[in-house]
Amino acid sequence: MSNYSKSLSKFISTATSIFDDLLIDKEPSSLYNPINSFFLNKGKYTRALLSLLVYNFFNSRISDISHLVLAIESLHNFTLIHDDVMDNAVLRRGAPTINAKWSNNQAILSGDVLLIHAYSHLLKSNINTGILNYFNQTALEICEGQQLDFDLQNQKSISLDQYYHMVYLKTGVLIKFALTAPCLLSENSETQLHHLNIIGDHLGTLFQIQDDYLDLYGEAKHVGKLIGGDIYESKKTFLYAMALNLSDSKQKSVLVETYHQEDKSKLQSVLSIYEQLHVKNAVKNKIQELGSLILKEIEALNVSDDKKVLFSEFINVILNRKK
Amino acid sequence: MSNYSKSLSKFISTATSIFDDLLIDKEPSSLYNPINSFFLNKGKYTRALLSLLVYNFFNSRISDISHLVLAIESLHNFTLIHDDVMDNAVLRRGAPTINAKWSNNQAILSGDVLLIHAYSHLLKSNINTGILNYFNQTALEICEGQQLDFDLQNQKSISLDQYYHMVYLKTGVLIKFALTAPCLLSENSETQLHHLNIIGDHLGTLFQIQDDYLDLYGEAKHVGKLIGGDIYESKKTFLYAMALNLSDSKQKSVLVETYHQEDKSKLQSVLSIYEQLHVKNAVKNKIQELGSLILKEIEALNVSDDKKVLFSEFINVILNRKK
Repeated sequence: MSNYSKSLSKFISTATSIFDDLLIDKEPSSLYNPINSFFLNKGKYTRALLSLLVYNFFNSRISDISHLVLAIESLHNFTLIHDDVMDNAVLRRGAPTINAKWSNNQAILSGDVLLIHAYSHLLKSNINTGILNYFNQTALEICEGQQLDFDLQNQKSISLDQYYHMVYLKTGVLIKFALTAPCLLSENSETQLHHLNIIGDHLGTLFQIQDDYLDLYGEAKHVGKLIGGDIYESKKTFLYAMALNLSDSKQKSVLVETYHQEDKSKLQSVLSIYEQLHVKNAVKNKIQELGSLILKEIEALNVSDDKKVLFSEFINVILNRKK
Repeated sequence: MSNYSKSLSKFISTATSIFDDLLIDKEPSSLYNPINSFFLNKGKYTRALLSLLVYNFFNSRISDISHLVLAIESLHNFTLIHDDVMDNAVLRRGAPTINAKWSNNQAILSGDVLLIHAYSHLLKSNINTGILNYFNQTALEICEGQQLDFDLQNQKSISLDQYYHMVYLKTGVLIKFALTAPCLLSENSETQLHHLNIIGDHLGTLFQIQDDYLDLYGEAKHVGKLIGGDIYESKKTFLYAMALNLSDSKQKSVLVETYHQEDKSKLQSVLSIYEQLHVKNAVKNKIQELGSLILKEIEALNVSDDKKVLFSEFINVILNRKK
């Protein structure tokens, strides 16, 4: 947090106290301990902070939407916990996953509880049916995105458009919800909604492309999980989609074959194909392109300068994230 | 359905048309097909029918609460699908489970979708926050019950009280919700709520005890799953709790040891211990006792005779169920 400006540090520190309420102080402890230990190993609260920074455009008392952001974080963590079971992942945020430390069954149940808790948080707020429906639709679309991701694993190829559609659902819709739901709870926010929708569209895509990028080109100490895991799992990442897009038909068939080998040594082979195709640069360019579109849209926001600066600084932190 | 009276048959047939809306007509079909195939392999809709029969006490247009009962059935089926993953079950209602036919990952995602869909249904109705909170609390308690069930699997012994507490959460709360939520949506229902709460308490326990009973003493053709599965899995059933309760200390240690053998032939050994201890009869007596308490409470309901007869007939069907 030391890299943040004084104002953003102050904002985040106020916001962070809200997240203590993610912890669930209830019995049976055998149910809630794994969930709490997952929360104690803190995430970045990116989605919640986006919501709070947007709400801050219109209202200075950000605690007004504490239940909304707790719902968003609970929903997000539900997806992470179930994804870890589905991916058989052993590490998350540098610590053992619930499935690795306890069991798959415990992790399934932990995720279920968090999904229900997301609604508990929402219901504690004075939220209208419109927001409840929007939240529900978002949760459903995340599952649809997860399904598309499954389906892609059964294909050997993937187009960029298929990738964009899948990540819009799997990652984008929740980021978009986080950015736009606070508008629906604020007066005089209508004219900004258009810009925030566009920011949401781009940021969701950018966020997942970054994840894919960091999985291979990030540093293990930052990322907190195995480097190259996506390649070992033959995941249909943006890097892979981009590599296919840049290949001629001969290169394509070599890449597809190499990418789907069971051989553990395929990481080096795939890396060298990516190098030939300049995939790393192409992906970096896409990230930059999306970043510029987002920053341009932030410029167009008609909100007070100091609040816009805060929001834009946080977005810049995301654009430059290493984990 | 041929065993029902003409009035009950008519009621159930009207109600059944509501359940067609459990099917989800959306894309991607890879996500919704497994769920729809689970629904097409129809359950008994016990919880939904209980709700409709109670609502019928106060209002004749039962379609008013169609969204409520769809939410109840979606929630119930979510628990079944995730339970099947957790239990590694291969058969449900005589057909392959989603985890067996597709995969564990598909079943986890199917359950997640159904849980979210339960809220979609609720939100479509003109339901108040009170009911939403009650529904949410119920969903959470079901998970807590599932956890207690996990925890019991790690113990070798179980008292009757531990059993009652676990099944109250795991099975009872949803049946109680189904019986009482319609009152909260009806005028002039307050005085009946007390009786329905008591019926709910007993019926939940009875229902799970019956499940445990049928798992061992039911007929495979009715039950639709492997007979004796609970013993193979060393499940902490009512039969086991009752057997321990009826044992002296020497019998107890033999039972505990036999019950936790990995040996597949233990079914016969456990059956013969149960026989010595007259477990089957003791369990039947408990089922009868709970049945009588329920029927007595139905008598005390102050609702029109024809509607009470319908309700009571359905309860009697449950009391005598073979699957």
